[in-house]
Amino acid sequence: MMDLDLSAGVGELTAWLVDLESVSGDEEPLADSIESVLHQLPHLTVRRDGNAIVARTEFGRAQRVALAGHIDTVPIVGNVPSAVRDGVLFGCGSSDMKAGVAVQLKLAATVTEPVMDVTYVFYDCEEVESDRNGLGRLSRTMPDRLAADFAILLEPTGGVVEGGCQGTMKARIGVRGKRAHSARSWLGRNAIHDASEVLDVLRAYQPRQPDVDGLAYREGLNAVGIAGGVAGNVIPDECVVTVNFRFAPDMSAEQAANHVRNVFGRWEVTVVDVAGGARPGLRRPAAESFVTAMGGTPRAKLGWTDVARFDSLGIPAVNYGPGDPTQAHTRGEYVRIAEIEDCAVKMAAWLKG
Amino acid sequence: MMDLDLSAGVGELTAWLVDLESVSGDEEPLADSIESVLHQLPHLTVRRDGNAIVARTEFGRAQRVALAGHIDTVPIVGNVPSAVRDGVLFGCGSSDMKAGVAVQLKLAATVTEPVMDVTYVFYDCEEVESDRNGLGRLSRTMPDRLAADFAILLEPTGGVVEGGCQGTMKARIGVRGKRAHSARSWLGRNAIHDASEVLDVLRAYQPRQPDVDGLAYREGLNAVGIAGGVAGNVIPDECVVTVNFRFAPDMSAEQAANHVRNVFGRWEVTVVDVAGGARPGLRRPAAESFVTAMGGTPRAKLGWTDVARFDSLGIPAVNYGPGDPTQAHTRGEYVRIAEIEDCAVKMAAWLKG
Repeated sequence: MMDLDLSAGVGELTAWLVDLESVSGDEEPLADSIESVLHQLPHLTVRRDGNAIVARTEFGRAQRVALAGHIDTVPIVGNVPSAVRDGVLFGCGSSDMKAGVAVQLKLAATVTEPVMDVTYVFYDCEEVESDRNGLGRLSRTMPDRLAADFAILLEPTGGVVEGGCQGTMKARIGVRGKRAHSARSWLGRNAIHDASEVLDVLRAYQPRQPDVDGLAYREGLNAVGIAGGVAGNVIPDECVVTVNFRFAPDMSAEQAANHVRNVFGRWEVTVVDVAGGARPGLRRPAAESFVTAMGGTPRAKLGWTDVARFDSLGIPAVNYGPGDPTQAHTRGEYVRIAEIEDCAVKMAAWLKG
Repeated sequence: MMDLDLSAGVGELTAWLVDLESVSGDEEPLADSIESVLHQLPHLTVRRDGNAIVARTEFGRAQRVALAGHIDTVPIVGNVPSAVRDGVLFGCGSSDMKAGVAVQLKLAATVTEPVMDVTYVFYDCEEVESDRNGLGRLSRTMPDRLAADFAILLEPTGGVVEGGCQGTMKARIGVRGKRAHSARSWLGRNAIHDASEVLDVLRAYQPRQPDVDGLAYREGLNAVGIAGGVAGNVIPDECVVTVNFRFAPDMSAEQAANHVRNVFGRWEVTVVDVAGGARPGLRRPAAESFVTAMGGTPRAKLGWTDVARFDSLGIPAVNYGPGDPTQAHTRGEYVRIAEIEDCAVKMAAWLKG
């Protein structure tokens, strides 16, 4: 395999990245290549942590933007090496998100005098458990080097700016009863029957649709699990409803937990996990100019994404990158080369001011 | 160990039976002993099937009564051999139901000219899975030899006649929805939320309390299980409520299944299992004279018991025997010897007319 050559076009760069396999946990060869080419760029200072790399300009500009992308992919399913047909590049990770990484690398190589400082973040293990996530690790090991006024994750968004993300919280609502033999049910209290009151609260719940930084979010509070029962001849003394609360980024994780505790105040509430959302920050100058430069109407991101890791550092963030997000994780994953080029051209123009 | 000697008192007989261990599946030595002593009684014809024995008088009387008892016990927990203290016999199976078996054996030996024909049934594997039950096996292999106008199971009832038993049925009520990502819950339909309507039906259900053959039964329809959920971020497309219907013996198993299908007509109903109840038949001549002879006020049996196996052969049945039923299956299981004697005396007097 040839060395990584940043003078190639972004389509060729993407193909090169796809061909160097980097399934989560096996990113080292790709991280080595990326670190090596970045070290050759005199306008960047480069730091590495495991298989994550942070490269920054240090011009002392008034604003700093972070451009971030994960370098790992889901497991390969016969879709490496890459193939090009009619301007479409096929291969594992082509859309999610080696096309975005190619854009990052191209910008790093060519935008040598940006109007704002730029932090390029390449990280590992995004496609696996949250506690292995490379961006999460960087936020703990080198938060100062991630600091920025605004962050862009180059995940595939089909060319639309997706702002921030909603938070997510899981909690268990425990309903207690009293056991009895089912032939004498009146001696007990049926916790499953009583759980219908929890479900009634869920059915009657009116979720908010707040506007945050100009984007319309849409919350939801839903049962995602229910379990109860001891044996076929026993009136059950416990039923647990697991609920998932998706909350807009104007609410903190703590506020969300308190809200759920209030909604189900009559029962035992156990918060299982909670991850705060991310404000889109689209009214900050860097973000406003980015949205204008990219064109189109930004939309709110409803699912939780890694932009929330930037938010936990106080950095508003958006998703924007080449590729169709619905192609991610499929055997036939692809990206249109023209889309990668369009993204690279627009972002370079924006960074050059 | 001495041979089984039916000239002994019922207390001694019970102790002998307790001391010959017969945990379910290991009843052969005890079945051998019982078969052997019954063969020595000229007024009985004896048949054996596995570890079950059926011994009958054949006097051509107008009425026939079956006296039945299981000879197996739950596992021993340091409570064999038996011990007697202050007129109380302790030991595994003393109450459930070797005292009853002792009464059967004593009656078989001493009531040589009963006013009605008598069928003595000793069977195995009552304390384990239903499909191993010896009485169930006999009802398939020799239904003619079980035929009777009335049956008495000598299970411990604390000296009260317990009539018939209620049936029991288990069914699954399936609620369907439509999956969606929980961040966009409005694109799906939450089957757990919709299951609250099933629970509402259960909460509103008014169970019957019918009088059957003079005994007051009390039905019940209850959730005994609920399960739903795909993953923490998915609106679930299925929720299953498992219900248990306990129905009075004026309703057949088929009628019970149809009733549950009607009650939950809006959903998918799958009958998991159903076992019909047993009418007490207390208005039949043999039963009426039995209740009068034993004294006390008979009560309805609400839980399902082996009397239902007689009912499936068209034979009304009751439970009546020495011992406190709440002692069954405990380490400290016991039976008062005076109770065994009282039962044997009363039943002998009744059979002699």
